[in-house]
Amino acid sequence: MKTLFSPKSIAVVGASRDPHKVGHVILKNLLESFSGEVFPINPNAEEILGKRCYPDLKSLPEVPELIIISIPAKLVPDVIKEASSIGVKYAIVISGGFGEVGRKDLDKALFEAKDELRILGPNCLGIYDSESGVDTLFLPEYRLKRPRKGGISLVSQSGAVGSSILDWAGEEGFGVSKFVSYGNALDLKETDFLEYLGLDKSTRVICMYIEGVSDGKRFLEVASHVSKRKPIIVMKVGRTKSGSKAARSHTGAMAGDDVIYNGVFKQAGIIRVYDMVSMFDIARTLSEQPLPRGPNVGIITNGGGYGVISADEVSEAGLLIPELSSEARKELKKKLPPHAVISNPLDLVGDADVERYKVALEVMENEANIHMVMCNVLFQTAGVQSEIIDVIREFSDRKNKPIVVVSAGGDYTRFHMRMLERSGVPTFDSPRRAALALKALYDYSQIRSQ
Amino acid sequence: MKTLFSPKSIAVVGASRDPHKVGHVILKNLLESFSGEVFPINPNAEEILGKRCYPDLKSLPEVPELIIISIPAKLVPDVIKEASSIGVKYAIVISGGFGEVGRKDLDKALFEAKDELRILGPNCLGIYDSESGVDTLFLPEYRLKRPRKGGISLVSQSGAVGSSILDWAGEEGFGVSKFVSYGNALDLKETDFLEYLGLDKSTRVICMYIEGVSDGKRFLEVASHVSKRKPIIVMKVGRTKSGSKAARSHTGAMAGDDVIYNGVFKQAGIIRVYDMVSMFDIARTLSEQPLPRGPNVGIITNGGGYGVISADEVSEAGLLIPELSSEARKELKKKLPPHAVISNPLDLVGDADVERYKVALEVMENEANIHMVMCNVLFQTAGVQSEIIDVIREFSDRKNKPIVVVSAGGDYTRFHMRMLERSGVPTFDSPRRAALALKALYDYSQIRSQ
Repeated sequence: MKTLFSPKSIAVVGASRDPHKVGHVILKNLLESFSGEVFPINPNAEEILGKRCYPDLKSLPEVPELIIISIPAKLVPDVIKEASSIGVKYAIVISGGFGEVGRKDLDKALFEAKDELRILGPNCLGIYDSESGVDTLFLPEYRLKRPRKGGISLVSQSGAVGSSILDWAGEEGFGVSKFVSYGNALDLKETDFLEYLGLDKSTRVICMYIEGVSDGKRFLEVASHVSKRKPIIVMKVGRTKSGSKAARSHTGAMAGDDVIYNGVFKQAGIIRVYDMVSMFDIARTLSEQPLPRGPNVGIITNGGGYGVISADEVSEAGLLIPELSSEARKELKKKLPPHAVISNPLDLVGDADVERYKVALEVMENEANIHMVMCNVLFQTAGVQSEIIDVIREFSDRKNKPIVVVSAGGDYTRFHMRMLERSGVPTFDSPRRAALALKALYDYSQIRSQ
Repeated sequence: MKTLFSPKSIAVVGASRDPHKVGHVILKNLLESFSGEVFPINPNAEEILGKRCYPDLKSLPEVPELIIISIPAKLVPDVIKEASSIGVKYAIVISGGFGEVGRKDLDKALFEAKDELRILGPNCLGIYDSESGVDTLFLPEYRLKRPRKGGISLVSQSGAVGSSILDWAGEEGFGVSKFVSYGNALDLKETDFLEYLGLDKSTRVICMYIEGVSDGKRFLEVASHVSKRKPIIVMKVGRTKSGSKAARSHTGAMAGDDVIYNGVFKQAGIIRVYDMVSMFDIARTLSEQPLPRGPNVGIITNGGGYGVISADEVSEAGLLIPELSSEARKELKKKLPPHAVISNPLDLVGDADVERYKVALEVMENEANIHMVMCNVLFQTAGVQSEIIDVIREFSDRKNKPIVVVSAGGDYTRFHMRMLERSGVPTFDSPRRAALALKALYDYSQIRSQ
């Protein structure tokens, strides 16, 4: 399936001169981001966006590895037949107007036409690959920000959900490898992508938004294999009666009994999440931080209240907060001022500077009984200089123990959080989000050790 | 207590020429934001920031209604004694170094010195009042953004938690009336502020961050009264064993049995939250939207997946999603294109424009069996023009039924969300947050009707 995500050449069937047409936006995006050959196909144009246009696939100087189709539904089966006959491997059918509007006949015609060729879609957004530059999202960059390169791949049954998550991830600065919106899933299905991404070297974490699974047995088999190599995070919706009814009218998915899904996910080593924010909270933590050797969290703070909240949240998440060893306490007493609260949570108090954080992080790193660190940094106080970014990044880069940072505030705080995030340190605006991310890290370490 | 929040005149004891000193920052902020008279007190200066300086309180041309103290702890009791003797009503003691570091003797001296005078603090951030301009937060604006005027007031036992929430609220564009950080609570306590804010006209919703309550019986009494007039949202931490231990070493609060707190909160009509994000989610919804007449939610979306997620979250929150009446369905069928999914959730589908939202909102507003609206708007799609802001605002301004908006994405989306937020429409980046806010709205309607 590597060909689908990074083909040598692409033909755009339905390339258009009209800037408002999907076939124009896709061609334009490809010409800007894709480094391979791109062929516009349109029988009524000589040239589009400076590229020579061809009347049909047969006229092309070479067989494209991938074709992207954006023409009326009823014309698609013939194009697929032609493509298949000349040896095209993959087609992304963006066009809607098939089974989702009751045209089962067009579904059937499409399926019969494809032969060896594999189809993504129809009725989908297609693919975004941050490395190869394949980008079939027909939404302009000002409405949908493309994320930077990274280790998270996302498979979405809903185009709308997928594109809004992608846009959000782009804004937050989270790194994404591949995105797939598979629409009606006439041919290629969620499990096919799961299988491929399990082998894909750039993908470190797989996220899936699904309303239903087409073949439960195969999904379980594939997921069980993949989850041993890399984390799979699934947001399965339609879990209530109302949600399940809505899913049926949306994708026709039989949402199924949620208890059964929970069982399957557990058996397959899948981490289940219930919203998109948690999905990315966990994904970016798993994609950047090492796995912990146990459930014990060391909490650092420069605001007592955040220490209390963190202790509550870490406990509630099911992780532990052990007392520090007498050696660690002795070390901290020697190096911290007398008003610091030497305990776990370790309160460096309101006038803490970068040096105090350095001491605290060193002690936490050396403390055998601490397996991961939750570091609260309140940038509102004057003592915390920007150099704290280097200190935390160095801890994170050594990859001895996972670390997450909690920090809430305005522009000044957010600037520092973004810098940390870019350095591979997951940041959160509340101890709750951070605790749940650490819990997922611990859970996945358990899945891996099974 | 109105005098504390909007006095006619203020003296700053410990005003300093050194820009790094707390007594300088506070004086500077007051001179910029407070319209009443400000007197710097410092025996070693003639003038600070262009204001004539006085050696002590007795030398002032008039008795200030409020004094703000930022001098070493051991000097504070004498100043309080002097202030009390000349008839000063309120003192905010910013200085630390009292009970919180074991100096119970200084606590005692302070308490004995005060006589009729009332003290906020010591060891606190003090007050921010967006209307009167009283601002004793000794943190510069670039680190701590001050929020705009609004109906939410916040009382915080932790300065760090309070200031980071305030900074965050400032950035998000949420409106705040008053903020109090009461520190050691030697004299004025959480319940005093609760009582005052219950009567304060500008405060529409009261938020509290507490680690413990000093007088449970009085708290219950006052809260039971206040909650009948306006919503009280409490984040009570120290609810786990680890958290409670951390609270003890932070504020000395006996966090107490969490089950008992839950009982007290329920009896008092208090809405309990577990993190700061939920606190503001609920507070801004309660401060801007009318109360619903029942638990039924109408869901609108232009992305099927968001309809499914919304249905799940609304159900899980304990609210209901009734089917639309046959009249409503007929009306929608007439005015919407055939591929719209006419149901609840109502899916206007991916090519929805502002006109379709207008139709949907009108029908939801007229439908007797719908009590509140959750409106998903995906700004990634090209059909949704910016004019949707006007359409939603008009619905919200009529105050017939509460409305919240869900929208996730990057810059383009966020710009539109901020504009809606500024118009009094609460916006959320996930259906979960929106559903919990609607649930709180419904819960408070039940508290009010009791």
